[in-house]
Parts: sequence; structure tokens; C-alpha cells
Amino acid sequence: MAGNTFGNIFTITTFGESHGKAVGVVIDGCPPNIELSTEYVQKELDRRRPGQSEVSTPRDESDTVDIYSGVFEGRTTGTPVMMMVFNKNQMSKDYDAVKNLFRPGHADFTYFSKYGIRDHRGGGRSSARETIGRVCGGAVAKAVLSQLGISITGYVIQVGPHKAVKKDFDYIEKNIIRTCDPDAVQAMTDYILDAKQDGDSVGAIVEVTVKGVPVGVGEPVFDRLNANLAKAIMSIPAVKGIEFGSGFQAALMRGSEHNDEVTKYGFLSNNAGGTLGGIASGQDIVFRFVVKPASSITVPKQGIDLYGNEKTIITEGRHDPCVAPRVVPVAEAMSAVTVLDLIMSDRAVAKFFTK
Amino acid sequence: MAGNTFGNIFTITTFGESHGKAVGVVIDGCPPNIELSTEYVQKELDRRRPGQSEVSTPRDESDTVDIYSGVFEGRTTGTPVMMMVFNKNQMSKDYDAVKNLFRPGHADFTYFSKYGIRDHRGGGRSSARETIGRVCGGAVAKAVLSQLGISITGYVIQVGPHKAVKKDFDYIEKNIIRTCDPDAVQAMTDYILDAKQDGDSVGAIVEVTVKGVPVGVGEPVFDRLNANLAKAIMSIPAVKGIEFGSGFQAALMRGSEHNDEVTKYGFLSNNAGGTLGGIASGQDIVFRFVVKPASSITVPKQGIDLYGNEKTIITEGRHDPCVAPRVVPVAEAMSAVTVLDLIMSDRAVAKFFTK
Amino acid sequence: MAGNTFGNIFTITTFGESHGKAVGVVIDGCPPNIELSTEYVQKELDRRRPGQSEVSTPRDESDTVDIYSGVFEGRTTGTPVMMMVFNKNQMSKDYDAVKNLFRPGHADFTYFSKYGIRDHRGGGRSSARETIGRVCGGAVAKAVLSQLGISITGYVIQVGPHKAVKKDFDYIEKNIIRTCDPDAVQAMTDYILDAKQDGDSVGAIVEVTVKGVPVGVGEPVFDRLNANLAKAIMSIPAVKGIEFGSGFQAALMRGSEHNDEVTKYGFLSNNAGGTLGGIASGQDIVFRFVVKPASSITVPKQGIDLYGNEKTIITEGRHDPCVAPRVVPVAEAMSAVTVLDLIMSDRAVAKFFTK
Amino acid sequence: MAGNTFGNIFTITTFGESHGKAVGVVIDGCPPNIELSTEYVQKELDRRRPGQSEVSTPRDESDTVDIYSGVFEGRTTGTPVMMMVFNKNQMSKDYDAVKNLFRPGHADFTYFSKYGIRDHRGGGRSSARETIGRVCGGAVAKAVLSQLGISITGYVIQVGPHKAVKKDFDYIEKNIIRTCDPDAVQAMTDYILDAKQDGDSVGAIVEVTVKGVPVGVGEPVFDRLNANLAKAIMSIPAVKGIEFGSGFQAALMRGSEHNDEVTKYGFLSNNAGGTLGGIASGQDIVFRFVVKPASSITVPKQGIDLYGNEKTIITEGRHDPCVAPRVVPVAEAMSAVTVLDLIMSDRAVAKFFTK
Repeated sequence: MAGNTFGNIFTITTFGESHGKAVGVVIDGCPPNIELSTEYVQKELDRRRPGQSEVSTPRDESDTVDIYSGVFEGRTTGTPVMMMVFNKNQMSKDYDAVKNLFRPGHADFTYFSKYGIRDHRGGGRSSARETIGRVCGGAVAKAVLSQLGISITGYVIQVGPHKAVKKDFDYIEKNIIRTCDPDAVQAMTDYILDAKQDGDSVGAIVEVTVKGVPVGVGEPVFDRLNANLAKAIMSIPAVKGIEFGSGFQAALMRGSEHNDEVTKYGFLSNNAGGTLGGIASGQDIVFRFVVKPASSITVPKQGIDLYGNEKTIITEGRHDPCVAPRVVPVAEAMSAVTVLDLIMSDRAVAKFFTK
Repeated sequence: MAGNTFGNIFTITTFGESHGKAVGVVIDGCPPNIELSTEYVQKELDRRRPGQSEVSTPRDESDTVDIYSGVFEGRTTGTPVMMMVFNKNQMSKDYDAVKNLFRPGHADFTYFSKYGIRDHRGGGRSSARETIGRVCGGAVAKAVLSQLGISITGYVIQVGPHKAVKKDFDYIEKNIIRTCDPDAVQAMTDYILDAKQDGDSVGAIVEVTVKGVPVGVGEPVFDRLNANLAKAIMSIPAVKGIEFGSGFQAALMRGSEHNDEVTKYGFLSNNAGGTLGGIASGQDIVFRFVVKPASSITVPKQGIDLYGNEKTIITEGRHDPCVAPRVVPVAEAMSAVTVLDLIMSDRAVAKFFTK
Repeated sequence: MAGNTFGNIFTITTFGESHGKAVGVVIDGCPPNIELSTEYVQKELDRRRPGQSEVSTPRDESDTVDIYSGVFEGRTTGTPVMMMVFNKNQMSKDYDAVKNLFRPGHADFTYFSKYGIRDHRGGGRSSARETIGRVCGGAVAKAVLSQLGISITGYVIQVGPHKAVKKDFDYIEKNIIRTCDPDAVQAMTDYILDAKQDGDSVGAIVEVTVKGVPVGVGEPVFDRLNANLAKAIMSIPAVKGIEFGSGFQAALMRGSEHNDEVTKYGFLSNNAGGTLGGIASGQDIVFRFVVKPASSITVPKQGIDLYGNEKTIITEGRHDPCVAPRVVPVAEAMSAVTVLDLIMSDRAVAKFFTK
Repeated sequence: MAGNTFGNIFTITTFGESHGKAVGVVIDGCPPNIELSTEYVQKELDRRRPGQSEVSTPRDESDTVDIYSGVFEGRTTGTPVMMMVFNKNQMSKDYDAVKNLFRPGHADFTYFSKYGIRDHRGGGRSSARETIGRVCGGAVAKAVLSQLGISITGYVIQVGPHKAVKKDFDYIEKNIIRTCDPDAVQAMTDYILDAKQDGDSVGAIVEVTVKGVPVGVGEPVFDRLNANLAKAIMSIPAVKGIEFGSGFQAALMRGSEHNDEVTKYGFLSNNAGGTLGGIASGQDIVFRFVVKPASSITVPKQGIDLYGNEKTIITEGRHDPCVAPRVVPVAEAMSAVTVLDLIMSDRAVAKFFTK
């Protein structure tokens, strides 16, 4: 595979470039008889759409999704589901200036070096618009998972030095940061707007909690639940690290402290983050990942052009000063696909004869 | 796939349990005409072998490898290379006591829940002995990579609160911690031995530097070099998090600070950790991962047995107070397989017509 | 995978139902910098389109293709190429009568049994319209192969009892049967029209010759060139058998007769059909496959409905009395994808160090 | 993948060369809790072993199998099952004469051209000894299938011009030809021995009947049951063609004749061979394949050597005058793996919510 498909049984294959005709996804391995409407998918998509608030890009892309196959009379048929969003509001001209430039922090240089050709407009395939297909695929996965009582919730827990303390899941979709702490939202917002004013961007940390994953999900030894989630999340643009449970804090712990004790009533702690030996233990799956500050800024930076000449580069356009709020639905989507794919694998092999 | 194969073109499939007959690997997709001897593989294997020092388990397993296929007159033939180590010195009796127990922090509970049966002896398939196959596979990948001028070096940079400051790569294999800092080795060693005396274990952080990866390696959008490395490393037992370049520090940075500037002489910094858009930029690939304190300790902990009864559990046996030094060669092996697999993929597709 | 993707490195994933919104394909692993236009693909597509002649269905579907991603300024970029044809002229009402019927010879019964739901209109996903995506994918593969000097030619060699004797490749696209023998075309046509008059259909045999495949293509031991071609061709609707070289005649031969002798000037015969041990030998790849008489006929046949009631079934509509002429471009497409995929695999592994 | 793995969920990966240390298989995706003993596997293996009768090679290889992983206390654990046979009675010296020769009909030339190196002894990886791993893998698949009430039976239906008429399944394992017709066995045997006396070999046709496959097995559109079986069977050395149901006879039939009618009591015929749209219809899966006359003969044939010089080549050694009887268990094994793999896939996706 050339990298545009994720999953083994439940798979998503995304296609499309930022300023091409469209971006979309083919979902294969979708169980039949799942209710699926464009309205439902659109709702998920609206969560990642630009133009939602002052902390995201002012580009106002409607990003209207349509379903082209795999659904009959409102239900999936077991055949591939193709969903697509036509690109609109493409100010391709905006990018003429960067046609021959390799913007610092962007994939311009690597795509061109890899393929010897690139669609430079808005990042082409490396644009975060590619994640539209992921969110559509994730919406389908979530629909299946919800029937199994599994929920996936992402939220911003840190913006710059400002950390969330409270975890109020009901609050997440009610604030523009998608943080879980009402007490942290103002400081986070101010911090972002401050950078925005400078034409700059900021980094953040997002946490995801998955509830209800049955014990046993995850395939030893390479397709562990945590390993596959790590790949899924690390494949999202701008993500530079991920940790499960106590994560990097484990370096400071002793085994007697890190081992999660078990009583007949269940686990007493969750340092493991929900897996043992890479297999779901029945606890919540909890992980955090870091989102780097967006590379598109108007602060002048040193770069080179196609011919190796040094250029001072400013990325004009309408950019996100902090991408984390919009990354949340993408991370949920990738988590949903990963978890569902491994549940299907577990049923196919380990639970074969209980069927 | 049921999880025991890693890679798409250059693949490793491991097999075997801790106290079964043998553990090993089948390598498929290995280029022909690579010199390969048991002596060479054995040398890599000896780096992960138990009994190397006072900070690792005193179990003295010789772990002698043999090559069973795919090599003719000292060279690979392009057909599958099978390598295997027979299990010896198996004190299976040691494990009778834990036969019906689910040890805290171990995969006993999840394997049993998943499959309804488990080889309880020494952790069975979930034992770190499984990584013997990975190291053998990695040795082959390294042999190929070395012909391309690519080197992979792992080293311990933190044990508990003790951090390496200097990076002296020549020192790594000369000390029992496999740290890169001669000034940190004593504190690290003392810290481990202190925990050992208590029957306890400690966590650590390992860093890996990959030099010489050609620009362009990594497949957008899901099989990014960093995403695949994240999966590879997170699939190693005891690893709980990974970060690239500036990693989680990026949460505190602005874009103007994080973007790596480029001059005609190259990059001025490496906050990205060697990839842009998931594709190698020509810089060193640099990442760190955290290794949790080993779960096998003699400090009594609360657990349950097969029947749900609460039990105070002590894991008797000869265990590693800090597994990080022995994880280093495993991480190098997984990195080698990942990088080679993606180089092959890049040549197969992106570089198709330059051939 | 759930079956809608073919290939390992160069892959096609088709989607769409006969009377859904659209049918199409995502091509992944396409080398960059290949010239690709809708006009070129359309030309291939027109070869499989209905309404071409009196021996195919009178349905006149324009089947206009468009490229939605992966092409920039007329060249492939190495990213996924999505192509799609909107469904038009869908007389879905025609199918209301068969909504609850399982038509003999059709996949109505098996799809419904498998998924518990089916899009009954025109066969839904099991319709031969699905092969539109294959032809689009094959067009891209052919474009790459042509740069390597590889050509693929399919032609009808038998219709009912009427066999082609001459092999005039220039004649193939000049006659409605797509046979290679000008002397056979009249008898073949008459034979088909005779059945058509009865509301019936006829079977046929198609041969494919692939010229220019480099020695060495084909992966032992399961992904042999002939094995993968067999799967590719057998996955085409209505194909019931395939044979290579001397094929089933080999049952009547001795080894001394079947073994192809070799001189310094090359092979003296081609009983093998172009492979030895599943690997291309440099000879032409030659195989034949049988196409069953189309299942859609107006001759009344005994069938059952959704509720198990016996029904006499006539498939009204506009059908092909002989599908072989329209299967030819589909077979070429599948052959092209198979051969290119294995060439890429051969370069990735066996030829790794000649690069 | 480089071709040594077959299957998607239940997979077999074979390794080993004819005169290397060993040949074997890793089975991944095996359901847990299946009874599995070396005795059971050995029995299957004995069916393909040389030295069984006067119509097969007189090489007497004991081919003793052992299980190295994945089985605990007589039952599979869900982890990879590795089985291996050490090579013995290897008269490698026999092959010194052919070291630099490309034997007609053999894969010597293609393997050398592909890899630039080959283990020439006994065909190396291209030897039919590779199928030992397949038979071991098939034995496990059969064990699972038998619990689902599925049986797979192969038998020789034609040797040279001599065809089986009766189909007596009980007779198959009672005669050295493995034919199903007691009245045909003598003529078949004589025909083979006649060729043997001349140092020559003969071709044959084998039929396989699979009973009990549930309706719905097979993945549209590429992983059809018949397409995957075609690949599985065509990947067996010496197989040159395959047909399902009426097969190539369909070219002579009309749709009104070929369409299998259905009543409330079931199908009235089986021209389709057990699938509709590539999905099992509940009828017996019936297919036939042709086995070419073995290439190893002592009749002198024209070939070339490594340097392009013409040589008259005789393949000395102890060879099979007709390989069909020994191919039967291999074909059953490959069929078993294919069917089980697709059953697992069907349950994973289409039957997801009936679980």
C-alpha cells in the first residue's frame, strides 16, 4: 500500500488535495444495516470545519458532504461507502507566491523531493483538508461503535502553559477551545489571540478518552490497541508525540507505584491507560498527544526556493493560530476507526467460536 | 492480519512463547545478495540477552540463533529468511504459583479474556522473549540499511530523575545502562540498584537517532515515517509514549520558534525531529520513548485470580529492575525494519521511473 | 480488507452500485509524473460502454468519467487518483418487478443472504457497472506499462462453437465481436443474434496476450504472476475458468512435449504461457478465460422470491446477448493492474540494489 | 508483501528451500481452543509425502513435522502456530550437475534472473517441498472447518486421456492415483508407468468438492470465493488452469441452459459451481484444475546454461512421473485456507451484528 489506507478490516482510504476538485474517503469493511445519513456525517464534519470562531481560520468553507455509494434507503449495505466534499472558496491565486518556495515547517520540500512534482496550492495533498475524509470515515465508525456502547471524547487539556484541571465533558462542545475546563478557557483563548495578533501560532495538548471498549480488543504483538492508536494519531498533521495513561511520567515511577492494582470491584488506578500487553483491559483508554504550533504564520522566516536560493518567507492567507480545537474531531475519528477495526479483528479470530 | 506481522514490503512475522519450544521470526521481502551470517545476528541478539549485568535479570539465557532458510552460501536469496532460538533454561515450574493469578501490570488477564486460554508460563506470548524475533529481523534490516549509509543508534537518556546531558555515542555500548553520558551513568546505576534491593523496578526514557535516511522516505498520509515509527516503538512491551523532535515541548512553543528555518547550507534546527508532512527531510530522525518500570516485582500488590478472588501477588523469579538497557536493541531493530520498509515503498512508487 | 481493493503496491479500490449516484475507483500507489487526461481514460471506458453494437445491450449510457484528485497540470502527483462516473439513464423502475425476486444465475440471493440488505436495482454492487472503476484503474496502469514497452491485448477467440483461427491483432477493434479472426466474425455474430432473437444469451472464450513483461516479474510463492492474474480475471463477473499456455490440454501431454526448450536464440515453444515457477520468463504471457452466457434473459426460468415462494422469472430490460466483447477491456484492465503491481513489487525487493 | 503469505485474516506464511535446513509455515489468525497435535498434522503430511507408491517419486522422505509455537496443552492459543519439517535424505550432490544449467520447464532461469542468486539444489525455494508448509497450514484450517461441518475432498478425474466416470469418494484414499473411479484406476496407472519407463511424465486433471460452506462466504468484488480459490490453486506448482462448475463448457451453452434454476427445495443444477456473484450459494463448491506433466524427466531436452551456452539437459534424480496424486492434499490445504479465511472475513464484516 502507498499509505492512503488505514485499517485492516474496517478501512478508510482518503483522496483529494486542498485545491483540487474534491476531498473524500472510501470506507470498506463497513457492517451492513447501519443507519447513515448525510446529515449525521455533516454534523461531525462541521466540528472540524474552518471559520467556527476567532481562534480558528476565518476561511469560511461550507464543506458539504454527500454520500455516493454503499447506502440504500438510509442504511449501509456492506459495500464500500464513498463520501466526498467538493472544494469551494479556493483562493488558489493566494498560493502563486509560494509556488516555488519551500515554506519552513511545511511539507513542500519533502513532497517535491519525494515525487518530483507537487500541487503547491494550499499544501495540496499535505493540507489538513485531507482530514475531511478521515472525519467522514470516523463518523461511520462512531455510528457502529455507539451500537456497542462505546464513546470517544477528545478535548484540549493544555494551550501553551495553560492547563485544564477540571474535566467537564459536557462543557467541551460549548467552548471554542474545546477544552474540558471552564476555568481555563479564558486564559487559553487570550493566549491564542495574543499569538494571532503577532501573526504567530501556538501549540497545545489534546486528551482522548475512550469508554466501553470490551476487554480483549487489540492484536498481539504488533497491532496492539495502543500501538495502532499511536500510528492513527501520529498520522494527523501537526501531531508530534503521544502518551498513554501516566505516559512520560512513568520514567519517574517505580513498578510498585505504576502497576495498577485490581480488586474484585475492578482496577484501583489507570496508569496503564487502558491496555495490558496492548490489549484492552476494560478500563477507559486514555491518551494525550501534542499538537505543534501551526506552520502557517506571517512572522518572516528563513527558507529556500526550488532552486536552492535563500528566501525570507511569510505565509500569507487565513490561518489557524491554534489548530488543536479543530484537531479534536479528527483525533476522535482516527480513534474510532482504530478501535472498530480491532474489535472486528478480535471477533474474527479470538471470538470465532463464541459466535 | 492477526497482528504478528509488521511491515508492508519488508515484513517480519514473529512467533513463539516464553516457555514454548522456540521463538523466532520469518522475514519476507528481504533483498537478495545481502551477506548474512548467524555470527552477525548473534551479536545483535547478545545485546538484548538477559544476564548482561547487575541491572538486568540474572537469568543466563544463551539465546543461540540459527538461520533455517533464505540464505545460500552466506547470502540472502530473496526468499523468506527464518531464524529461531530454542528456549532453554526454562524454569517453568517457577510459574506454577501464578498459573491462576492475574499479575498486576501484566497481560495475564487480557490474554486470558481475549482467547479463553493462555500459556501462563513466563507470560507466554506476551513475554518480552517475543522480541528476540524482532531483533533478528532488525539485524537483517540493519545489514541492508548499512549498505545505504543509514545508521540507527539508541541510548538511555533518563533513568528516574537522572538525565543524560552529554551525547557520546561511542560510550553507549561501554556501559551497562547504555546511556550516552559518562557523567550520568553512576547516578542511574545507583538509582536502579536501589530499587532492585527493594524488589522493585524503575522507569526510563530512551532516545533513538537515525542518520542518513534519504529525503522522501515516508508514505503520505497514513504511513508517515513518524506514524509508522510510533507504531513500531509502541508495540514494544513496556513502552507508554513517544515524541519526535521537540515533542511535548512543542505545546509551549510558538510557530515562529518551532518552524525549522532552512538556508542553502541546510536546516538551522530540528524541532520537527526529521520529518515534514511525515516524510524524511534529510535531517536526523530523532525520537524519545518512555519505558515503564517493569511489572515483575516482589513488592506485594493487590490482584485477582482466575475466579475473581482477591490475592496479594508477588512475582517471584529473576527480573529486570530496569528494562531500558535491554529495550535499546529492540527499539533499534523496530526502527530499522520501519525505515527499510518505507525506503522500499518509496522506491517502488515515488522513485519508480528514476530506476 | 473487505474485498473491494485489488493489488498490493499499485492498488485499485472500486466503489458504487448500478443505480446509486456514481461508480468509481481510487488508485493508490500510482507513480508520479505520468501524463493522465480524462480524454485518455474516456477512450478506454468507451470500449466497455453499453450501446456499442447490435450484439451488446441497447442501453445507451454515456459513462462520462472525471478525475477528482491525484492529477496536477496533466500529470499524476503520486497521491491517490480518484475517478468517477455519475450514473445516468437509470431506469430504476424497471427493477421494481424483481425487488423481491432472486433471479436465477444472478447474485441477488447471495448478496441478500450475506448482508441482510441489498440494493436490488440493476444488481446493485454486483452489477457489471462496477467494472467501470476497474477500466479507469487499468487505463492508468496501461499508461505506466506503455512507458516500459508492455502491451496488453484481449480478443474473443470463441463464441459458442465458433473459433477464431487467424490472430490478426489489428482487426480486433474493427469488429463488434472483438475477435481476432476476420473469417470467424460473421458466424460469431449470427450465433449471438440468433440467441438474442430468442431472448437468450451465449457463452464465449477470450484470450489475452501480454507482451514485453520483463523476466523476473512475479512473487514466489503465492503471488505468482499466473496466480494473481487468475484471481484478477476470475474476479470479473461471468468468468468461470482460466488457463495459461497449453492450459487444460496439458492433461494430454507428456513432459517431453510440454517442457519448452530453450536455445541461445530463445524459447522454441510457449506451453507454459510465459511463466516458469510463477515468474515471467520473458515470453509472451498468454491465457484464456471462459465467459458464461449472461444471466439476464427473457426466457422464463424457475426461481424463488424473498419469502421462499417459487416464481417463474423473466429478466426484462435491455441486456447483452453476449458479454464477451465488453469484457475484453475489463480483462485488459485487470491484467494491467496485476502486471504493474508485480513489476513494482519486483523492483522493490528483488531489484533493490540495482537501483 | 513479497509473496510468501496467503490469506488476509487466517494467514499462512511458508518458508524454506528444498535442500536448506528445513521447510515450514507460520499460521497467524488461528482461532484459539482448537485441538491440534503433531499426529493429526503428520497424517495430512503423509498424504503428500514422496515414496508412497510406484507412481510417485521413490525418494523416501519421512517428513516429520513438529509444532514450535502457538499450542499449549494440546490446544491452539490464538497466537502464531509455527510448524516445521527438517530436510533429510538430501542428496544435494545430485544437483551439482545442474548447478549452472537452466532446466527446461523449471524455474531455474526465472529465479536466477529475478534475484541474481539462487539455491540450485533441488529447485531451492521453487521446489514442491515448499508445499509442506501449505499442507501443515491446511491441516489447521481443516480442523477449524470440520467444527463448522465443512469438508474438502480432492481427487484425480483424468490422467492423460483416461477419465473418471464414477465418483466414489470412499475409494479415493484407497488407490495410489487418488482417483474417485475404481474402474479407471488401472488404465490411469498403466498410462503413468508407461511414461515412467520412458523417463517421461504425464499430465492430469484434479477435481475438488467443498461441502457445507455457508451461504454468504466470499467478499465482493475482488475477494470472491472463486477468485481467491483460483489464486490459491494456481499458486501450486505445475497447475496451469482452473474452472468452476461447468467451466469452459459454458462457452457452448446458452443462458437458459447455464442458469441454475431454484425451487423451494433448492437448486436444480450446479453449473455455477457453488457461487453466485463470487459468493457461496450454499451449493457444493466444485472446481477442476489441470496439472502439467512434471518438468523433471530424463528425456534429453534442449536448454541453456548460466552463460547462454546451449546444453542438452537430462534431469537425473528420483522424480514423479505424475504429480497429481500428491497435489491432491496440497489443493485441499489451499482450499481449506481460502475458505476459512473468507468465512472469518464474512463474520467480521457482514455478520458483525448477528454476533
